[in-house]
Amino acid sequence: MQILVIGIGAGDPEQLTLQAVAALNRADVFFVLDKGDVKQELVDLRTEILQRHATGYQVVVGRDPERDRSSTAYVEAVDDWRRRRADVCAELIAANLGADQVGAFLVWGDPSLYDSTLAILDDILARGELSFEIEVIPGISSVSTLAARHRVPLNQVGRPVQITTGRRLAKEWPDGVDDVVVMLDAHTAFTAHLDQDATIYWGAYLGTPDELLIAGPVREVAAEIEKVRAEARERKGWIMDTYLLRRS
Amino acid sequence: MQILVIGIGAGDPEQLTLQAVAALNRADVFFVLDKGDVKQELVDLRTEILQRHATGYQVVVGRDPERDRSSTAYVEAVDDWRRRRADVCAELIAANLGADQVGAFLVWGDPSLYDSTLAILDDILARGELSFEIEVIPGISSVSTLAARHRVPLNQVGRPVQITTGRRLAKEWPDGVDDVVVMLDAHTAFTAHLDQDATIYWGAYLGTPDELLIAGPVREVAAEIEKVRAEARERKGWIMDTYLLRRS
Ligand SMILES: C[S@@+](CC[C@H](N)C(=O)[O-])C[C@H]1O[C@@H](n2cnc3c(N)ncnc32)[C@H](O)[C@@H]1O
Ligand SMILES: C[S@@+](CC[C@H](N)C(=O)[O-])C[C@H]1O[C@@H](n2cnc3c(N)ncnc32)[C@H](O)[C@@H]1O
Repeated sequence: MQILVIGIGAGDPEQLTLQAVAALNRADVFFVLDKGDVKQELVDLRTEILQRHATGYQVVVGRDPERDRSSTAYVEAVDDWRRRRADVCAELIAANLGADQVGAFLVWGDPSLYDSTLAILDDILARGELSFEIEVIPGISSVSTLAARHRVPLNQVGRPVQITTGRRLAKEWPDGVDDVVVMLDAHTAFTAHLDQDATIYWGAYLGTPDELLIAGPVREVAAEIEKVRAEARERKGWIMDTYLLRRS
Repeated sequence: MQILVIGIGAGDPEQLTLQAVAALNRADVFFVLDKGDVKQELVDLRTEILQRHATGYQVVVGRDPERDRSSTAYVEAVDDWRRRRADVCAELIAANLGADQVGAFLVWGDPSLYDSTLAILDDILARGELSFEIEVIPGISSVSTLAARHRVPLNQVGRPVQITTGRRLAKEWPDGVDDVVVMLDAHTAFTAHLDQDATIYWGAYLGTPDELLIAGPVREVAAEIEKVRAEARERKGWIMDTYLLRRS
């Protein structure tokens, strides 16, 4: 058994690599966890990618377990959620993938950034009931897309860049870095740093027809981003955004 | 005039995105700075990419100015080098790109990480003598490739990851992060951190037929990496490596 973990880019089907296209072709079974509350456009993008590039395949959908969002113990809640997702995935794989078949998970953006697919598969392997090879196909992340659309590098010459979460940025500006990329931000954490002499490069729905981009001194454009973000979220029912904060 | 900055992936021509392939087709003129000491295999990869995907194009080669590697003022030396590269590029563009033509620079990996192409183009635009639109096509970075080949995420759940240089890591482990990705390391800076309870995921020539991968507790595998790295460098005359250090 082989399982492919395929990065599909962050919203634009043209971001697929040639390698990903070949991998889509190799897979016999695609595993999907249905989130229930799922964004129809994201499902449509996956369907479009499969219809355009995969051949002779089967799609198996499992029910994604609920995550305990009330818990204040973030890491434990995510760990527990991952274990329950591993239960579901292990069952899906055992029931649907033949010994000489190739299974695949499509991963949003790049599998290396804030994605649990690899942890879930490791979890399943560690249980020892199933055995398979894993191959990872890297994808264009939302971070690379953000930088490309704003035509900026992520780092200043010879300087570091940190990729972190909104939850962390809300608490403090990270030590030792002037360049911070923020993902998974539900609450516009940049507004906690209007005292900083920093430029923000913000993007939402990157790579999709709804893409939004705003850049400028964070102090001056924060209110505009908050407004645009709230309106877009209201209009579409969901939002995915990320940004680079650059201190001069 | 339009200039495309096209990320071509970190060594495997199959890492090109569909978007990059389309961009290669749109370009009339490709600009290349010849480093003189350049690695023939990297030139060959570019040539292969152009031959496979571009059509009806012209390649214009400029002489890459020398960088002052003796200088201890790293940022100033790089800034000065960038200005002189901008001089060369501005001349190449002015002399070879028609007003309604599309020019392109191929960038190794992803243009957002430790690459000066965007800074050079901004520099040229700031002088006001030339005017063009810039479009950036993101690429698969060596960092994404490293994570994919080791089948690991870059971050731990809800935790940050910092991308930095060997020069900086040699001085200290960065504050506030347990996960550090290191690029541009000429001197195996990880050996300065054998006191850390950390795992290293190391990769050289990623995505190429010469790819090397070593992973394990940094204390235990550091000597092996040093040996393999020195041998490979000796054998091929050059090395490109990157690694993730993960503290548990
Ligand atoms: C669970 S993480 C997955 C990241 C993904 N693996 C990647 O490489 O982009 C989801 C976060 O990624 C960012 N994100 C993903 N796609 C995005 C897009 N198209 N536009 C803006 N942000 C995006 C947002 O910060 C979102 O909260
Ligand atoms: C000037 S930076 C360019 C990085 C490039 N823009 C990217 O996205 O990978 C060069 C550094 O990238 C890393 N690198 C680039 N290609 C690599 C490869 N194929 N294997 C390992 N490291 C690589 C090395 O750390 C090298 O010192």
